[in-house]
Amino acid sequence: MPATIEFFYDYGSPYAYIADWLLPGLRERTGAEIRHRPMLLGGLFKATGNASPITESCAPKRAYFSKTLQRWVAFHGLPFRMNPSFPINTITLMRMAVAAQRDGVFATYHPAVFKAMWVDGVDMGDPAELARVLTAAGLDAAALAAAAGEEEVKAGLKAATEEAARRGAFGAPTFFVGDEIFWGHDHMGLIEARIAGRLPAVA
Amino acid sequence: MPATIEFFYDYGSPYAYIADWLLPGLRERTGAEIRHRPMLLGGLFKATGNASPITESCAPKRAYFSKTLQRWVAFHGLPFRMNPSFPINTITLMRMAVAAQRDGVFATYHPAVFKAMWVDGVDMGDPAELARVLTAAGLDAAALAAAAGEEEVKAGLKAATEEAARRGAFGAPTFFVGDEIFWGHDHMGLIEARIAGRLPAVA
Repeated sequence: MPATIEFFYDYGSPYAYIADWLLPGLRERTGAEIRHRPMLLGGLFKATGNASPITESCAPKRAYFSKTLQRWVAFHGLPFRMNPSFPINTITLMRMAVAAQRDGVFATYHPAVFKAMWVDGVDMGDPAELARVLTAAGLDAAALAAAAGEEEVKAGLKAATEEAARRGAFGAPTFFVGDEIFWGHDHMGLIEARIAGRLPAVA
Repeated sequence: MPATIEFFYDYGSPYAYIADWLLPGLRERTGAEIRHRPMLLGGLFKATGNASPITESCAPKRAYFSKTLQRWVAFHGLPFRMNPSFPINTITLMRMAVAAQRDGVFATYHPAVFKAMWVDGVDMGDPAELARVLTAAGLDAAALAAAAGEEEVKAGLKAATEEAARRGAFGAPTFFVGDEIFWGHDHMGLIEARIAGRLPAVA
């Protein structure tokens, strides 16, 4: 049976964007199934006492993060532009992702949102800009906006975020292979080695 | 002219140990010259307002660090054992490294200390244990102990630590290629790409 990699992410994280870009290669090389698990990173930070790297209090560390994000993007050859509106409140985007999974439009929704955020620099916290992006992608923006307001969808996102915290996540992107947690696009090589049996289990 | 990689490290950091293990391969693949730059990690933390990962206040993040250290060790196939006396005050070890460079015994001193710390689990903060390790490596333990007390040597370590802080370092291992800073054994691939010209300069 092929392994399953659960990918907990938030569209607001540029590191999750890098990870998302790398996932097809990981899937190809491991034969694993990828399960996209939208969560609310702000909620996870709150639940775990963690904070965004942009609030890092050590100034040279914060400077390093910013430089190195640019380097990883160049390293992997991704299209990328730092979003001028960063950080963006992503709760609607993440609720829409839950709805899009339920309603069968995730395969269109997901890449459109990541691209708008991290390639086109759109202010996705602005409802009008968001609607424009969704419409341009061929999605029903009004239907997604309505779905994002449904109790079931809101509860779904909350449950996923709580599940991530319960399983040991504290940031994004976070991956699970069974009970084993992996954090960060720069640790995806460990996932590959683990699935290939070159690493022992560390749960 | 081949590139020079400055490697700022402290024997107390298991990540610096991993980096040290990976340096020969990096040197071989890039043709770069490696310059070992002993510094006092505790002093760097103090100078920059950073802190050891073991003091990380987010409990799941701390747990992740610990798990993932084991994974990287397995990933790279290193001999490794978490030092039961960790964290160890390394000021004498680092001063001895400065003296060993000056006195031409660094090539023996350096691997012996890293091995005692991270393979043999020796309490290297204990002067008797330290002397035993140095003697077993064929070094003059008394001469190194005396050198570690010299003002010149003490000032040399202090200057290197201050230089690291001034150039943007905040942890270990830290690498410089010219003015460009790289942090962490897990970012050594970026150094390689940079020297090979596959990354733009990000100073």
